[in-house]
Order: sequence, then C-alpha cells, then structure tokens
Amino acid sequence: MGDALEGDFRKAMRTLASAVSIVSTAYDNRRFGMTATAVCSLSMQPPTLLVCVNQSTSLHHPLLSAGRFCINILHADQDELARTFGRKGIEDRFACGNWKVDDRGVPFVADAQASVFCTVEESYGHRTHSIVVGAVYRAVVRDSVHPLLYQDGRYTVGVADGVDWVIPIGH
Amino acid sequence: MGDALEGDFRKAMRTLASAVSIVSTAYDNRRFGMTATAVCSLSMQPPTLLVCVNQSTSLHHPLLSAGRFCINILHADQDELARTFGRKGIEDRFACGNWKVDDRGVPFVADAQASVFCTVEESYGHRTHSIVVGAVYRAVVRDSVHPLLYQDGRYTVGVADGVDWVIPIGH
Repeated sequence: MGDALEGDFRKAMRTLASAVSIVSTAYDNRRFGMTATAVCSLSMQPPTLLVCVNQSTSLHHPLLSAGRFCINILHADQDELARTFGRKGIEDRFACGNWKVDDRGVPFVADAQASVFCTVEESYGHRTHSIVVGAVYRAVVRDSVHPLLYQDGRYTVGVADGVDWVIPIGH
Repeated sequence: MGDALEGDFRKAMRTLASAVSIVSTAYDNRRFGMTATAVCSLSMQPPTLLVCVNQSTSLHHPLLSAGRFCINILHADQDELARTFGRKGIEDRFACGNWKVDDRGVPFVADAQASVFCTVEESYGHRTHSIVVGAVYRAVVRDSVHPLLYQDGRYTVGVADGVDWVIPIGH
C-alpha cells in the first residue's frame, strides 16, 4: 500500500514541471551547491522564497551554518550545469560553470537566468527535509526569460514565445 | 531600496517557471479553490508536498479547518480553469471545470493532469503566508505528461517531446 502510494506520488510529481536552480553557499572556506527543483516564492513584501533541502545532503549543514545562499535559476542552455550539480560523486562540481562570489562571500553562477541572494530567515525541519526560508537581499535577472525546466524526469524548456521554438534537451 | 528590491525579486521570479495547480478543499458544505504555482514536493518517504497560501485568501481558513485538500496539476489545455481560479470576484468559480468529489469529500478536477490528495500534516505560518504541508493519501495521473506552465507572467506549455510542438497560450 505504502509502496503503491509512493509510486503513484512519484508519477504525479513528474507532471509538476518546474524551473531548475542551483542552491549555492560557502562555509568554512568551501563552496557547496546542489541542483534543486523544490524552490518557490513565498511572500512579496518582504521578498522571501523557500527551498526544500534533504537533511542527508552535503549542502544541508553548510547552508544553515553559513546562513546565506544563492538561488541560481538556470538558463535553458545550462542543462550540463544542472546535471553536474544533481549527480553524486563528482569531486569538484564547481569546475563546471561560470562561478563568481558576491560581497558577502556567496558563490553564484554569473550567467544564470537569475540569481537571488538570500539570508536564511527560518528553517522548518519536517521529517527527512528542511524547508529553508530565505529573505532576499539582492536579485539579478539576465537576458530574456528562457529558463531550463525539469518535467517528466528530464530537462527541457518552455516555449518562450511564438517564434523561438526550441529543441528538447536529451535526458 | 525596499521597492527596488521587490521589483528585482518579482522580475527574477518571472524566470522561475512552474506547473500550475488548483488547490481545492471543502468546508462547511462549501467548496473553495485557488490557482497556485507555489507547490513543490517535499519528501518521498512518506509522500509529502507543500503549498504556500497567502493568509488573506478565502481558501486559507477553510483549507486549514477542513484539514484535507487536493492539488490538481493542470493539463496544458486547462488555462481557462487556471484563470478562473486565479481571478478575484468570480461568484462561482466551480461552474468552470469538470469537478468531482472523492470519498473524503474533497473536490477535484476529474480531468486534471494529476490529482494529489492530502491531509494537512503541518502548517508553518511565515509572515503573510502559511506553508501548508500535506501528507499524500492518494495520487492519480492521467494521460501523457503535458502540464500547463506559468512563466514570465503568462501561461504557456513545455515541449512535451520532439514531435508534439505546441502553441503558446495567450495571456
């Protein structure tokens, strides 16, 4: 019963398309990052967002300890970056991508679709995950809107407008 | 400063493409529903998800009082439904759409892309919003994966596969 429900839930979540972000932080002179799709805006006034982070990931402790992070919303052509930060066992994930550091020491993808810099305002531990709420202190958007998407278990893109047809990205 | 940051944050959030859902519940013999994009999966074992709900919406109190709800992940062709449940001042939103009721009295869109039925497991009040965590008790998926998306302030669709090109939906 539990397994069947879990399977059905997984299938349903494959239809919950979402943008793809890398959550990044620095702590103890090291950089940490992870591909995430469970990111959403919370309030507009003041600007806050949330990201769900599994407590077993290498990012979890540094993120909460540093108390600040960046949500790098990836551009349609940054699927390699998404894959690199979504896989386990890669020694230096940060060798991939155009990384810079802001004046508070937070690493960010300089050519991401958007970079949203946050301080950790609250963290709600819930079962295996933490719901981390970030208070936004800076937000940068680059170029026209054309984010990478994750849908049906693979990376793809949305239809940006009536002209700009795009080729789906291989799994 | 605050206004500029809010504007930048809004622009950044326009790049955070997401699936479109209607959150629905019934309370005190009435149905309530609202279009939402701030929905994400939380844990897989057990299956939980979260939805961010503004405390000032008509849905907020019934949702927490009823203690159960459905996340109806909309199909690409259900943009009218999204608009109906996203606007204020519509007397009977439920006149739009193919609504049914499950055995616990929760209304759901019978032809949505997916329907995920939850009991409210926890609600974290954070500033203007509540982060409502649902424990999934049933999940149903219909047809192939082709959800409605919200990106750059309008409804659109993802590229389902290499063949099925789709026309963006007007604002």
